[in-house]
Amino acid sequence: MLAALAILAAFACTNADDYGYRIKDNKIVYNTPARPADQQSMLGFAAEPIEHVRVGIVGLGDRGSDAVRRFPYIEDATVVALCDLYPDRVERAQGILESNGAPRAQYEFSGEEGYKQLCEREDIDLVYLAVPWQLHTPIAVYAMEHGKHVAIEVPAATSIKECWDLVNTSERTRRHCMMLENCCYDFFELTCLNMIQHGLFGEVVHVEGSYCHNLEPYWDGYQGDWRMTYNKAHHGDVYPTHGIGPVCQDLNIHRGDKMDYLVAIDTDAFAGQDKADERYGKGAVPKYANGDNTSTLIRTRKGKTILVEHSVVTPQPYSRMYQVQGTKGYANKYPNEGLALGGSQLKDVAYDNLDAEEYMSDAERDAIMEQYKFPFVTEIEELARKVGGHGGMDFIMDYRLIYCLHNGLPLDQDVYDAAEWSSLVELTEVSINHRSMPVVMPDFTRGEWNKLDGIKFALKD
Amino acid sequence: MLAALAILAAFACTNADDYGYRIKDNKIVYNTPARPADQQSMLGFAAEPIEHVRVGIVGLGDRGSDAVRRFPYIEDATVVALCDLYPDRVERAQGILESNGAPRAQYEFSGEEGYKQLCEREDIDLVYLAVPWQLHTPIAVYAMEHGKHVAIEVPAATSIKECWDLVNTSERTRRHCMMLENCCYDFFELTCLNMIQHGLFGEVVHVEGSYCHNLEPYWDGYQGDWRMTYNKAHHGDVYPTHGIGPVCQDLNIHRGDKMDYLVAIDTDAFAGQDKADERYGKGAVPKYANGDNTSTLIRTRKGKTILVEHSVVTPQPYSRMYQVQGTKGYANKYPNEGLALGGSQLKDVAYDNLDAEEYMSDAERDAIMEQYKFPFVTEIEELARKVGGHGGMDFIMDYRLIYCLHNGLPLDQDVYDAAEWSSLVELTEVSINHRSMPVVMPDFTRGEWNKLDGIKFALKD
Repeated sequence: MLAALAILAAFACTNADDYGYRIKDNKIVYNTPARPADQQSMLGFAAEPIEHVRVGIVGLGDRGSDAVRRFPYIEDATVVALCDLYPDRVERAQGILESNGAPRAQYEFSGEEGYKQLCEREDIDLVYLAVPWQLHTPIAVYAMEHGKHVAIEVPAATSIKECWDLVNTSERTRRHCMMLENCCYDFFELTCLNMIQHGLFGEVVHVEGSYCHNLEPYWDGYQGDWRMTYNKAHHGDVYPTHGIGPVCQDLNIHRGDKMDYLVAIDTDAFAGQDKADERYGKGAVPKYANGDNTSTLIRTRKGKTILVEHSVVTPQPYSRMYQVQGTKGYANKYPNEGLALGGSQLKDVAYDNLDAEEYMSDAERDAIMEQYKFPFVTEIEELARKVGGHGGMDFIMDYRLIYCLHNGLPLDQDVYDAAEWSSLVELTEVSINHRSMPVVMPDFTRGEWNKLDGIKFALKD
Repeated sequence: MLAALAILAAFACTNADDYGYRIKDNKIVYNTPARPADQQSMLGFAAEPIEHVRVGIVGLGDRGSDAVRRFPYIEDATVVALCDLYPDRVERAQGILESNGAPRAQYEFSGEEGYKQLCEREDIDLVYLAVPWQLHTPIAVYAMEHGKHVAIEVPAATSIKECWDLVNTSERTRRHCMMLENCCYDFFELTCLNMIQHGLFGEVVHVEGSYCHNLEPYWDGYQGDWRMTYNKAHHGDVYPTHGIGPVCQDLNIHRGDKMDYLVAIDTDAFAGQDKADERYGKGAVPKYANGDNTSTLIRTRKGKTILVEHSVVTPQPYSRMYQVQGTKGYANKYPNEGLALGGSQLKDVAYDNLDAEEYMSDAERDAIMEQYKFPFVTEIEELARKVGGHGGMDFIMDYRLIYCLHNGLPLDQDVYDAAEWSSLVELTEVSINHRSMPVVMPDFTRGEWNKLDGIKFALKD
């Protein structure tokens, strides 16, 4: 009987429908379901080149509208379809295209089912999603099922089940599924990544990323109040992606290393509850769930660690706290961009000289960062800064997406990135609900995390 | 039989000799041993005033020597005894006294047992310890057993057993046991604490403290190589105190709140192993234990969180990362002293304006910090900056210690602070050894953590 149970348990661990966890050896262990027979890995996947990328944008709030504004500056793509719940937003987006010198989109969709009509068209190549979090995965899956590549705002999914839906659908349909993690394209992060790849930091041992942003001025801007609706119902780092994305690239996550397990912790919702009381009336939200601060620690298979923080309801200066600690170098981005490289010269220092190891001067930093800029950044930087979108990074992201589709190259971010980074939403909540128990993370690559050798930004010959 | 075991287990949990832990409900739970009948709480304890405090300093390396240099500037105290393993260091310390206009110390002790002779003298009031970590508790206990108040360098203890030894001995002998957490006396931290007590930060929800200091220039300075000897044998945050001290004061730990549980994580020892190989020869240290970075997350009973980091072998600018996040304000100290208060003015901000909430200007910050300086700091600041010791904080610490002893007042830091802050040394190691399992922390106050109302800096009438 016990043997039979053991066999059953082993089977359960690889059942293709099992997206859940069990508690084993005092840990929460997530299952990695078996890959169905009709799927193949998307690692390194490249689709056929697309001469001119026909883009359909779904979701025309602040974020989607700004994508509409940026696309006219990209040569090999055209926004051919626009979709939003509300027709007036579609019309506003048409105006944005026109005022940026682009033709109006051929197709307009609105209402609850508009996205379906858009996805069902044959003459669209890429569906670009800027809808509320809760709709990311359902619409992305629908788009891939209808033969479209998809690009999804962050986070791409809000549960482990949804993460697997993205992976499974992408693997089965052979369509790209890229999360629009714009912060991977910011100038400081990109150049640090290149310096890391050139060995200037030695072995990268610990990294930090965060999303600390007081959303006070923005709460009214989320259609249907979707963001606070989500936050008030969920513990956990509900928006981990801006912090986790760039540092995962620095650590070669699923390209030589893997996030192994995490622990998360949160504060009570002191400011969160106040905010909810003020917004909805005292008593309307009996217990606001999301902590004023959520912190997550992750350990990788190769013995590196990651700190991620999330904090959106207390007053504080914006910080994505991009920080890299290597055996030979150190960088941090907030509140000031700082670089410290080397340090072997530090001998015979008085015991309380705490300034022994300083950041390099701004001029030295700028010089070395100019030297280590990725060539593809140098090429596009001037235009990116002109077009803007969080200072240019949004444009570089769009540009790279279209460049790779146009040239039939692997995208910079694949579906496993989208799943891994988004998986923190549920995994951190589960850890917190178990008073910070460690959570062994699923392997979305199903054993192939050590097959690729670091992130590459694919370039045509 | 099961009932008998249950009773035995319940008994074991309050056994006065049980300093250990067990795994229960997927957590590591530390026992809080019962208080022996001949002990009383030291909360709020004040000893008889001492007209003139006679100080014996044990340990005359860099840290002890600098204390010798500072004491002549304090009116109500005299260094009457000096002790070190080596007589030449005692002689050097005598010279330091003389060159600072103080008389030579009456008593000199050296050798392995010198500290015992010093502690056994009747005409010494305070034993001031600056010896290797491993000797802190044994010597402190010996001193208290011989009727002396003790002040101990950080960390005061290296194990939970030692933490309890300090608590039990202090409670039984009615002698002060203060850890010399100088960072609690730095200007920025002190003034932030006062601002917090005046409500400028609202409810403090999350705090951070760290000790990130590349010790490359200092490794040869630790007598008998005690520091690397300790680090190479231990996982965990072996030096948590500079980070944890000030932020525990901000959260009123054991003065209204309590650290409830923690989780810790570390990297492999990439740089640590390299350093050991270089120092001792390849193969001499088969596996250097202490991770290049160790991170700890702590949750309190009142739903606040603390992040502590330790990192001493990779090149990086010095950072104690003092950071306070409240419902109404935010402060951080590294790399620049920054303050952000308020923020209710933030409405109608464009969605990608990430500079909506800024630090106040340096001038505004300086003005408000001048206004909220503790009066006792204002009184002593000029002298403190002149005498120095990490910029003056070391002197303020000594000054307050002697002030309180002289006036018969409770000390700023009590034995429970020493135990709680030092307890992280073992608790983080145990969490890491169990792959980041949560550790429920012991209660050194034995149920009295909610009796006092915040930290007070006692002043004479």
